[in-house]
Formats: sequence, structure tokens, C-alpha cells
Amino acid sequence: MQAWKDYQEKNKDRFLNELLELLRIPSVSAKSEHKNDLISCAEALKTRLLEAGADKVEIYPTEGHPIVYGEKITDPSKPTVLVYGHYDVQPAEPLELWKNDPFDPTIIDGKIFARGSCDDKGQVYMHVKALETLVKTNTLESNIKFCIEGEEEIGSPNLAKFLNAHKELLKADCVLISDSAMISLDTPSIDIGVRGLSYIEVEVTGPNRDLHSGVYGGAVANPITILAKMIASLHDENNHITIPGFYDDVVVASAEERALMAKAPFNEKEYAEDLGVQEVWGEKGYTTNERTGIRPTLELNGIWGGYTGEGAKTVLPSKAYAKISARLVPNQISDKITDLLIKHLEKIAPPYVKVKATLHHGGEPYMTPIDSKAYQAASKAMETTFGKTPIPVRGGGSIPICALFEKELGIKIVFMGFGLDSDNLHSPNEKYDIANFYKGIETIPYFHKYFSEM
Amino acid sequence: MQAWKDYQEKNKDRFLNELLELLRIPSVSAKSEHKNDLISCAEALKTRLLEAGADKVEIYPTEGHPIVYGEKITDPSKPTVLVYGHYDVQPAEPLELWKNDPFDPTIIDGKIFARGSCDDKGQVYMHVKALETLVKTNTLESNIKFCIEGEEEIGSPNLAKFLNAHKELLKADCVLISDSAMISLDTPSIDIGVRGLSYIEVEVTGPNRDLHSGVYGGAVANPITILAKMIASLHDENNHITIPGFYDDVVVASAEERALMAKAPFNEKEYAEDLGVQEVWGEKGYTTNERTGIRPTLELNGIWGGYTGEGAKTVLPSKAYAKISARLVPNQISDKITDLLIKHLEKIAPPYVKVKATLHHGGEPYMTPIDSKAYQAASKAMETTFGKTPIPVRGGGSIPICALFEKELGIKIVFMGFGLDSDNLHSPNEKYDIANFYKGIETIPYFHKYFSEM
Repeated sequence: MQAWKDYQEKNKDRFLNELLELLRIPSVSAKSEHKNDLISCAEALKTRLLEAGADKVEIYPTEGHPIVYGEKITDPSKPTVLVYGHYDVQPAEPLELWKNDPFDPTIIDGKIFARGSCDDKGQVYMHVKALETLVKTNTLESNIKFCIEGEEEIGSPNLAKFLNAHKELLKADCVLISDSAMISLDTPSIDIGVRGLSYIEVEVTGPNRDLHSGVYGGAVANPITILAKMIASLHDENNHITIPGFYDDVVVASAEERALMAKAPFNEKEYAEDLGVQEVWGEKGYTTNERTGIRPTLELNGIWGGYTGEGAKTVLPSKAYAKISARLVPNQISDKITDLLIKHLEKIAPPYVKVKATLHHGGEPYMTPIDSKAYQAASKAMETTFGKTPIPVRGGGSIPICALFEKELGIKIVFMGFGLDSDNLHSPNEKYDIANFYKGIETIPYFHKYFSEM
Repeated sequence: MQAWKDYQEKNKDRFLNELLELLRIPSVSAKSEHKNDLISCAEALKTRLLEAGADKVEIYPTEGHPIVYGEKITDPSKPTVLVYGHYDVQPAEPLELWKNDPFDPTIIDGKIFARGSCDDKGQVYMHVKALETLVKTNTLESNIKFCIEGEEEIGSPNLAKFLNAHKELLKADCVLISDSAMISLDTPSIDIGVRGLSYIEVEVTGPNRDLHSGVYGGAVANPITILAKMIASLHDENNHITIPGFYDDVVVASAEERALMAKAPFNEKEYAEDLGVQEVWGEKGYTTNERTGIRPTLELNGIWGGYTGEGAKTVLPSKAYAKISARLVPNQISDKITDLLIKHLEKIAPPYVKVKATLHHGGEPYMTPIDSKAYQAASKAMETTFGKTPIPVRGGGSIPICALFEKELGIKIVFMGFGLDSDNLHSPNEKYDIANFYKGIETIPYFHKYFSEM
């Protein structure tokens, strides 16, 4: 569509500047001190959606951070696409590893460095600008709804309730999500599955107070040592997870799927070099792509206990803590795995300590059928703008809300992610390539066109 | 001595108030932000020593925190006691576990709650008030020197140089140290040995940046998991330390010494109850007192890595850290154990990670001969004021400077500690019983009297 191309070319600098403005708002959902930043961010999105041509935009308060709903209804008899995304971001710590202030977006070599640049403000904003393109060129033939939440990074605790309470408002024919990555601009791909999540925190208590490690050391169990032994026991020598029942519901990928996965371009040497590791690690019997795609995992996300400051302190601490999360694949069930994990940790705790394990949040794994209308529309749209048919792949991350949309609204999801695995999501120096941002804005209008024609 | 008793009774409230004033100075040697507090504390001590009757007091600057030297020379031909102590304190963190501000001493039930109350300002100050008692009652027959440093809690990095440079100034017949505990006011005891120390920090680096645990989890070694496995491997199923060569130089205690130790009053049930643990822990084949007295140990003093803040962050961190310290017994050598420990950690590191281990500080174990004049004087002094012969015991903590005094000045040390194991040294709510403070002031003059008469 030449009209789209012309409109986008003329406005591209403004599109970028508007995104940078959005990235300056530190909308960290995990930290209560940022509550007002989340509200500011929701309001900024509302303004931008109205400017882009939405008929109606509303900010729905929740018990946590608000949800932004917007819509452009052209013809209720035509297909409707519900765009889901999130305007909240992960904490930016450790700040000292950032090259720039994470909330002062800085462009280097065509990449926008900022927390949320890719996950997910940059990708959400492509949809706002795609709407603007369609509206301003009078080419929107169908209906678009937006549901942009502010709690994705803390497990969407209030989304189910919102979906359930607004079934009519959110009625649509598919959910379109850009919160994932593709292989590269040269090798487009579409995620057909995301992993589920079970995220817990464990607290190990030894003595009832911090002790002098000289006076008591050797005679009282050290909770750090005990926690380390517990963690160490969670993977065996083949890096299989040792929790009884953990793999029971895993759907073993077929030989065909594994053969197809093996064809995706991947260079293990470059992968290891990019990460600065001498050797990759993982479950015996599986390739790197299989380990992140079709297999469940158990990762330590944080650990702390005792003295962690400058210098030395000879303390035998009272407590040690860890944050642990499992990524789940079909047909594992988040609640079931959480329960197994918590019970297992309690069971393996020796009698010298007390162990308390609690759920942070969870989410179910999800698979998109590649024969669905939405997948076909996404594939055709990417083929149009990239010149290549995208490869279907399984993503390693989790978008726990997927199963929620299916359960509450009965509609299927399609992922059209424009990020890259190297975008440093959840890490210092998160970035989003400007080229990918523009490619998304170019591609999304085709999705709406093809989906409405199917 | 009635004159001592009368003088002390008349001045006891002032003695206490002066100590409280000293405790208000946050002289945390591990933290550079407290540099000026250390200087203030040294100056306050100087003032108090002069008021107490010292002839000469000098503050010696070092590359770190200053050393306070003081002396009262009655007759150079008479015996001289060198009192060693430290005016620096451990960091007070975690602050939220204190019932009061650690630098606003609070008296509850006859106990002074403050950082440094027992370790070691309270015990140092007993010596200042003992000097005052002797001087003001004209009963000092011998000579007393003071060497009070400000870096004990960070491993006394500048003490050896000071001792070496001032051998004549520090010349004495014994070193007297009150920086340890006794069993109780009812059961006096004297430490005859302190353990050595080897304190290191280890850094485990996996990927070169923090990663998204969904995108990379399961395919790259997680440094927390690897560190946990390394730590877990340091003790076997009998809680023996697995580092090859670690026990090589340990002098195995004789059956006689073990039999003597077994006679010291100790109730394991009360010990466990006081600590709030269901079961004690430790090296198989040894009792609790043996585990903290005659056996070396390896303790985790701190661990950290990944996200440790509020809420959840799905990060696979680049780095994880631990602070690890070994307590050493005769004839283990600190440098040798540090070397074994560092090399062992580097050796067991799997190829997926990089491991860097570095020394914080160390010190040698030390034994006081119980047939020495100084031990006999201490024993007799305690017998005089407690009405019972003190039991010789081995302490679990470390006073790494002991071996230093012997090496640099060629003089033996005697410990006369008035603290209790339950004083929460290095922990929140450190305390010192006022009764113990006064008992020390009452006892120390007898030590000087008996030592000068032997």
C-alpha cells in the first residue's frame, strides 16, 4: 500500500520521538514507589490512542495498576482484532551495568537503549502507529480494540477479573500480541508457543538471630549452606530437574517437530560467543533451541542472605532466600508445578532449618495453531513486508495471560513479535532497533487487512 | 581491696555514662563513609585515657584507621602489661532487626543494647576504668600500656607494621586482651585458644550480561545454580570439609583435653532452644563444644546474585557472589588454607562459568599456655572476684592479632573476656550486661596486682 508507506515515511521521526517520550516514564510495576508513574504512563497512552484515531479510550482502575482500553470500530459486522500489550516494565536494576540512564532513552547505532524499549512499550507503540496509519489513510476496513495493561511484569494479577467483567467490551475474533522476538530482520519468525511459569520465593531460617560465625560456626546449620545444598539438588548430573512428577505432563515433541526446529538457522559457537561463555549448558539429550523451546526449565532468579556489603563480616546469618522460577511447556499446569515445587522444597529441608516457600505468580504454557486464520494473516503480512515466509518457532519466555484470554473470552491468540533475542529484555541495556520498530509499523496494517479479508 | 571497691562504687554511674557516650560513635571500620567517626572515637579514647591517669597518650595514624597508644609508667623496672583492644565495630546491618538504633545505646533489664557494647568498646573501657581505679587510689605498682586499634573487625591490616615499627614503645611482659566471653557470671572461664581465620570472597560469572530467564533459561549455566552446587560440595554428608588438604595440619585434641572439655557445664537442649533450632548441626564425631573449639569450620557469611528486591524478576543473572570464611585451629596456617580454598574453588568451577576468588583477610590460630605467669595471674584475679577458679576453654572466634604480637614483639597473650556467648556479637541487638562491665572493672586491678607480684 503506497498510501501507508508515504504516510509512515513522512511521520517516522515523530513516531520515534513519541516512543522516546513514553520510555521516559519509569513505569516499574514491581515497585510500589512507581505507582504514580504507572498512572502517568496509562494517561500518556490514552492521549496517543485518541490522537491516533481511536473513537473511545478509557482507563480502567484495578486493585493494582490501571488497564488502558481503546477501540476504533469501523463496522461491527466486520472482524475485530484485540491488541494486547503492556505498558509496565521490569525493574532496571542493576543500574551500574547500564551505559545510560534506563529511563533516558539513548540512540546508538540505530538502537534505542531504554528499559521497556522492546518489552513492551516499543512493540505496543507500533500498534498505536499502525492504527494511526490506517485511520489517517482511510483504509481501516475492520475493527481494532486495545487492551494494554500495567501489570504484565508482575504476573497480571488483576487481568482475569477485568477480562471476566468486560466480556462484551472485549469481544473480538482474535488477540494479536507483539511481546516477543523473531529470529532476525533477515529471517522472520512467528512464535507458536510460549512457556508457562511458576515463580516462587523460598526462605530458609536457621538460628533465630544472626550469630557470630566464630562463636557458633560449625555447631549450628548455616541457612546459606543448607539453601545451597537444596538448590544444588534440584538438577541432577544430566541437568534434569529432580522434582518428582515435574515432567509427568510434558508433551514430548514429535521427531518431526524436532527435525523442523533443527533446520532453523542457529550457530551455537556464535551464541556462546555473544554470551561470553566457553560452553553452553543444559539438559542432556536436547539441543540449545530445544532446551529453550520445548523443554521445561528451573532457574534461580535471585539469592541473598548474610552480609553482602563492602568488606567482611563474620556472621552466621539467621536467614537465606532465593527466587526460583520454572518455565513450563504443554501440558504442564502452573498450579500443579508450583505445588510440587513448594512441597519438594519443604520435603528436602533438613531438620536443622525451617523452610517457607511461597508463590509469586504463575501462568500456563500456550500454543497457537498454525492453521488458524490469525496465524495465516500474520504469516502473510510478514511475508509481504519481509519478502520471506516467517518460520514458526517456540519461544522460551512466558506470556501467562495467553491461556487467560482463551479461558475468559474464548478467543485464540497470535504472536507477531518484532524484537530480537539479543534485545536484553529484563537486563541492563535493553534495546530495540529502530528498524524493527518501523518494520512492525509497516507490517501490522497488512495483518488487519488480510485478517479482515479471510 | 576496699579502696578499689569504694572508688568504683562511688563512680559507677559515671563509668557507665562514659561508655554509653563512646557507643554513640558509629565507628564501623568496614565502611569508608565512617572514616571520620573512627577518628572521633580514637580522640574520645585519648581524652578518657588521659583523664584516667595515663602519662602519655598518642594517636598514631596508619594507612587505614588510627591506633591509640597510651601508657602509665610507675617504675620501669617493674612488670609491664600491654592491654590490647579495638574501638572499631562490625557493621550494624540488618538494621530492621534491631530493637533500638544500634548507635543509640539503650538499657533494658540491666543490659546495654548497642553495636560495640561487648565487642569491644565495653570491654576496652573496663581497662580504662581499671587504670583510673589504680591511679586514683595510688595503688598501681607496675606499668600499663594500651594499644587500641581501629581495624580489628576488618582484619587489622596495619597492625603488624605498627608493632614492627614501635617495638621499644610497646615492650611489655604480657599482652592482656578482653575481647572474648566467659561461660557465665556463675561459671567464670578463660579462653586459652582462639581460632584462626581465612576469609575470602568468590565471584561466579556465567553469561556476560543479565539475561531473560525465559529466553535463555535452560540453555546457559545460571551462576547462582553453579555457585550453589560449588558451595554444596564443600561439606560431605558427615559435614566434614571436602577441600583436599584442609585438615592436614590440624592438631588432633588429646583424649584428656576432650574429657576435660566434656566436663564444662553445657546443656545442648537449652543451647538449641536459645537459638530456636530443632537440632544442632555439625561435624560427625564431635560434640557441640568441640565443633566450636577444637575443630576447624567453613561458613558462608554472605551470598547474593540476581534480583533480590521486592516482587519477581525473571532474570538469569550474569554473576553470583559469596563470602566464605574458615576458622582454623592449631597448627593450620591461614595463608596455606586461603590458598587451598581459592585453588579448590577455581578447580571445581565447571567450564560454563568463570570463578574469581580473593582474600579478604586472615589470621593464625593461637593457644595460651596455662602454666604462664599471665594465665596464672588472670586465673587468680577471677578467682578473687568470682569466688571460683575459672575454667580454661577454647574459644570459637578469632583474634588474628594474637600470633602477630608473638611474632613482632615476642610476648605471650592472656585473654580475660567478660562477655557472654549470648551477647549477639556481630548480630542485631548486640548487648553487654552492666554487671559484666562492672565485674571486669573489679577484676582487672587484681590482674595487675598479681602479675606484678609474680
